[in-house]
Amino acid sequence: MMTDKLNEHGRSLLFTEARTANRFLNKPIDMSVLQALYDLMKWGPTSMNQSPARITFVTTPEAKEMLKPALAGGNVARVESAPVIAIIGQDLRFFDHLPTLFPSAPDAGKMFEEDEEKAAVSAFRNSTLQGGYFILAARSVGLDCGPMSGFNNALVDQTFFADTSIKSNFICALGYADPEQYYPRGPRLSFDQACTVR
Amino acid sequence: MMTDKLNEHGRSLLFTEARTANRFLNKPIDMSVLQALYDLMKWGPTSMNQSPARITFVTTPEAKEMLKPALAGGNVARVESAPVIAIIGQDLRFFDHLPTLFPSAPDAGKMFEEDEEKAAVSAFRNSTLQGGYFILAARSVGLDCGPMSGFNNALVDQTFFADTSIKSNFICALGYADPEQYYPRGPRLSFDQACTVR
Repeated sequence: MMTDKLNEHGRSLLFTEARTANRFLNKPIDMSVLQALYDLMKWGPTSMNQSPARITFVTTPEAKEMLKPALAGGNVARVESAPVIAIIGQDLRFFDHLPTLFPSAPDAGKMFEEDEEKAAVSAFRNSTLQGGYFILAARSVGLDCGPMSGFNNALVDQTFFADTSIKSNFICALGYADPEQYYPRGPRLSFDQACTVR
Repeated sequence: MMTDKLNEHGRSLLFTEARTANRFLNKPIDMSVLQALYDLMKWGPTSMNQSPARITFVTTPEAKEMLKPALAGGNVARVESAPVIAIIGQDLRFFDHLPTLFPSAPDAGKMFEEDEEKAAVSAFRNSTLQGGYFILAARSVGLDCGPMSGFNNALVDQTFFADTSIKSNFICALGYADPEQYYPRGPRLSFDQACTVR
């Protein structure tokens, strides 16, 4: 049986020494790296294996220009410097895939089909969980992340997801961070501030 | 400079070979392991370092009994077999901590204080992201997870978070999985089903 804990290098890479990228080096991302990222993140658990996240990798200058009008002003320079921007979206009709994804309950999709609010909450929660897996999977394949929720979701939806059941959740700049342009690292809440033992 | 990718063991442990626990071995979790879990997960990025997740570790038989009436029927046996259940909550007044957590914009809390809906969406998105970090951090410290959203959130809030600004998001059974009681692993969407390159 293999060791059942992550080693110090892994902990540093994913958690303790990882930093949010503010600006990126002028270095492209190979398509195989984006594929490897997805092939890790997809295994993270979701409720009933719903897997509602849909990722749009914005890679061309033209597509990036389409994204810019939706950005909060403070995020434009970061996006401009990133070789790839991922739009983490959520498919509000994720339940169409449940007969395949969750074969043990072939009718499970019905309760979401019949309750739009229930479907929306589940799509948001589970696509965001997958967003967390996405960020740590990106670090696992050697990428740095600059996740952002400061943008106009409705405009992104109109530009990229018109006439689909996909809505944007958050966006994440991807690339190789310029180590000279990190912001100072923020403090974190202590165990006693964030956790209670009952 | 250290290797900038996660090794195969780490990828297996966190993603490719990791499984959701259905039943747990009769083996307790040391408090130091829960502390180590938090000390990894806390470093995952959130918008403006909001860090809205609040974790309640349910460890005693008495506290577990309080949780049971809120569970979906299919989840009771899993919860009964787990040494610890984590309630991943969200503090709707996370912005009270922003002057400390995000010192570069000391007034940032105001926009959330003045807009309850904006605060609720941000608390949900960011506490769920932290829930994703929680699950992968738990695996990093050698724990298995059984995350669940099939429960009565309002009843959990009334039982555990009355007169606070905390609301439950999802729960996660923690412990050491019984390897003979996994469910079959569900398939995942392919890159082409879940991703688009623009």
